[in-house]
Amino acid sequence: MNSKKHLENLFELLRIPSISAQSDHQKDMVKAAAWIHKKLTSLGLKSNILSTKGHPVVYAELMANSKWPTILVYGHYDVQDHGNPGEWSSNPFEPEIRNGNIYGRGVADDKGQLYTWIAALSDLRASRFKLRTNIKFLIEGEEEIGSRNLEEFVDKNKSLLASDICLVSDSDCISENDPVITYGLRGIIYFEISIKTLPKDVHSGTYGGNVLNPIEVLSNLLSGLKNNERKILIPNFYKNLRKIPIQEKRRLNHYPFGEREIKKETGAKVVVGEKGYTIQERAGARPALDINGIWGGYQGEGAKTIIPQKAQAKFSMRIVPLQNPKDIIKNTKNYFLKNTPKGAEFHLKVLAADSAVLVNTTNKYFGLAEKAYKKVFGKKPHYHLHGATIPVGGMLKRALNIDTVYMGYGLPDDGLHGPNEKFSLGMFEKGIQTNSEFLKSL
Amino acid sequence: MNSKKHLENLFELLRIPSISAQSDHQKDMVKAAAWIHKKLTSLGLKSNILSTKGHPVVYAELMANSKWPTILVYGHYDVQDHGNPGEWSSNPFEPEIRNGNIYGRGVADDKGQLYTWIAALSDLRASRFKLRTNIKFLIEGEEEIGSRNLEEFVDKNKSLLASDICLVSDSDCISENDPVITYGLRGIIYFEISIKTLPKDVHSGTYGGNVLNPIEVLSNLLSGLKNNERKILIPNFYKNLRKIPIQEKRRLNHYPFGEREIKKETGAKVVVGEKGYTIQERAGARPALDINGIWGGYQGEGAKTIIPQKAQAKFSMRIVPLQNPKDIIKNTKNYFLKNTPKGAEFHLKVLAADSAVLVNTTNKYFGLAEKAYKKVFGKKPHYHLHGATIPVGGMLKRALNIDTVYMGYGLPDDGLHGPNEKFSLGMFEKGIQTNSEFLKSL
Repeated sequence: MNSKKHLENLFELLRIPSISAQSDHQKDMVKAAAWIHKKLTSLGLKSNILSTKGHPVVYAELMANSKWPTILVYGHYDVQDHGNPGEWSSNPFEPEIRNGNIYGRGVADDKGQLYTWIAALSDLRASRFKLRTNIKFLIEGEEEIGSRNLEEFVDKNKSLLASDICLVSDSDCISENDPVITYGLRGIIYFEISIKTLPKDVHSGTYGGNVLNPIEVLSNLLSGLKNNERKILIPNFYKNLRKIPIQEKRRLNHYPFGEREIKKETGAKVVVGEKGYTIQERAGARPALDINGIWGGYQGEGAKTIIPQKAQAKFSMRIVPLQNPKDIIKNTKNYFLKNTPKGAEFHLKVLAADSAVLVNTTNKYFGLAEKAYKKVFGKKPHYHLHGATIPVGGMLKRALNIDTVYMGYGLPDDGLHGPNEKFSLGMFEKGIQTNSEFLKSL
Repeated sequence: MNSKKHLENLFELLRIPSISAQSDHQKDMVKAAAWIHKKLTSLGLKSNILSTKGHPVVYAELMANSKWPTILVYGHYDVQDHGNPGEWSSNPFEPEIRNGNIYGRGVADDKGQLYTWIAALSDLRASRFKLRTNIKFLIEGEEEIGSRNLEEFVDKNKSLLASDICLVSDSDCISENDPVITYGLRGIIYFEISIKTLPKDVHSGTYGGNVLNPIEVLSNLLSGLKNNERKILIPNFYKNLRKIPIQEKRRLNHYPFGEREIKKETGAKVVVGEKGYTIQERAGARPALDINGIWGGYQGEGAKTIIPQKAQAKFSMRIVPLQNPKDIIKNTKNYFLKNTPKGAEFHLKVLAADSAVLVNTTNKYFGLAEKAYKKVFGKKPHYHLHGATIPVGGMLKRALNIDTVYMGYGLPDDGLHGPNEKFSLGMFEKGIQTNSEFLKSL
């Protein structure tokens, strides 16, 4: 194991601002894909950069013996927008170590976690360990924008991707001493809504009281998406939800992600949600809806007395197993059709649509992952239903009928998607070791 | 009359981007005030630039005979923000004449209209007409930000400003052939509201369903400001409204500002407003509430899956005679206190607060203004209650007990506060002539 070298390598990757959502980072996306390709090639894998309709996929393989099992390691080289640099203590794209953590955009989500597999493989090869498995890598550049071209890629490359199990390191443990295997993730549908009532901004004194205000219309529409009990009011939204078995429910409710943890991690003063469910159920087993951004009219200094022409918002739903994205998109459109007042035009855009994932925990690779965790952490991992989304799992299940084991090494306070994202040095090392143990056990 | 010279002068003033709301235009404000000062000095007035807590006031006077009446001409040299330059057909600060109109920010509101008084005085002096009136000019730089330091200025300078009547050219006629005298204007209260639920943005997958979303809270609060009948739900909002005499109501409802005009001027597809009132009543005699701007969370390209920390909006009310801004501010604060959920913090800022104005139409100067209009336009002017706000009238009534005659020369499609603001060349000339006739009649 060569920690210093691994860190140097990871820092190179973190310096590339591969923000998939923003077209002015196109060159950085290509640069990050090339970096991954070069690294996997250097480890002796046959690697290729494969184009999609969006950002490219890096696919690499080490096919040694057709009798051995084949594992598929998934990760993503793209990152979220860094937001306001003023909220960061260091440059988001110049990684820095402080208090046992690496700080930088994408270090936990997912560059550092993805790198635990590259490092594990590198260490095993350095120690001349004789692996008894074939390995494939599928590293995409669009996870943060809903993996929007991955499904087509998977469907077109079924034989290339054929394998026995998929491994993903893109989720969290509870703490450095409490490991977790995620067996389910919520899906996501991400919308952008635009409301237009006028062809231009007009004077709010002359016309105030007679003209439809698009921000008012948008506020009413967004406000109408939930009732007082925080139930989502899109028609048929809760149809077809999976009934959670009593034993699973009990395990779910024992997971240490309650009021205390949420308040500590987020700084929220209250923890509130859908009536009738526990915090743990709401976190992973129940759907949620959030407004992610809103804008319209005058946002500058001081007063501008206009009725603006237009207002826009981004909102997204986290959906759970058996909820069908297509139905929900149709019903959401119907909600706006029915509730947008006459004289206002709405335009609804779907930016991402991915189903939830639920994995069979009796799969033998789960057992092997569990043992690897136990060896490194000294403890059996918790089984967890995660509230976030990693679209690949559902796609692989549908196209290749394989399960996914989510061996995540993040920590709850890593600050994914926000400022000062970090990844613990200790978890980076434990991740590399756990992945090594898993690979050795195959 | 020297139209070419007047236009050249006006263009100089229009080229100064005197946007009072934005602190980076501080120098332009000083420049515009200096320009007015120089111009009034050149006409033989004793002019001074007087400082306030905000942008300076230009005060000038021509006191010839203490037995003559004294008129006070009010105007403002500040303009609204120009918004997106891409929505303008020409540079907002490089005036241009197209199809008989002058285009440029502030040309109708109020630089061009204000200039009709300067031009009228200049013409009368050039023709050696012997005026029988004293003239004072009060030209401020904060009308577009609610004249926030004018009240204090007026209170401190009562004897300086003492006069018999105030004249303001900052309102509209119906058309080039239908003149209007405005006898009342709505007041304004302009708020900025900020809702904070978190100290930082957090991941909407991990925490979605358990954490208060500030955009959702803000949407609910804004949505709750009105009911389905578009009544404003701030407690006691409609208390103390003036009862409009039946004859005035009849005149109001004959004013040609109905569905057809509003649709034509704004491009709106529907005209809607408070239940139980006509369009004309809603335009000037009933209060209104509009959201002027909103922002929060991710507004960039593509998807960002965050629950943002904060959401903000600007909203304003147009208030009518007898509504008290102080009470409404208190009750608005109470609305947010009562309805903001636990765990969310709100911060409410008041950016402007001005009462409505209602003027005594039996005043003799109204009669003189009416005659001047009739002479130039060949028609008696309509009497109009305007929906917009010019704070000075109420301040002068309270401090000096004088009325204001609003002799406006704008047209309904001038596009105030929006892109491509214009002022008709014909109305510019008629304005100069009408003001000249008024001055000659004193």
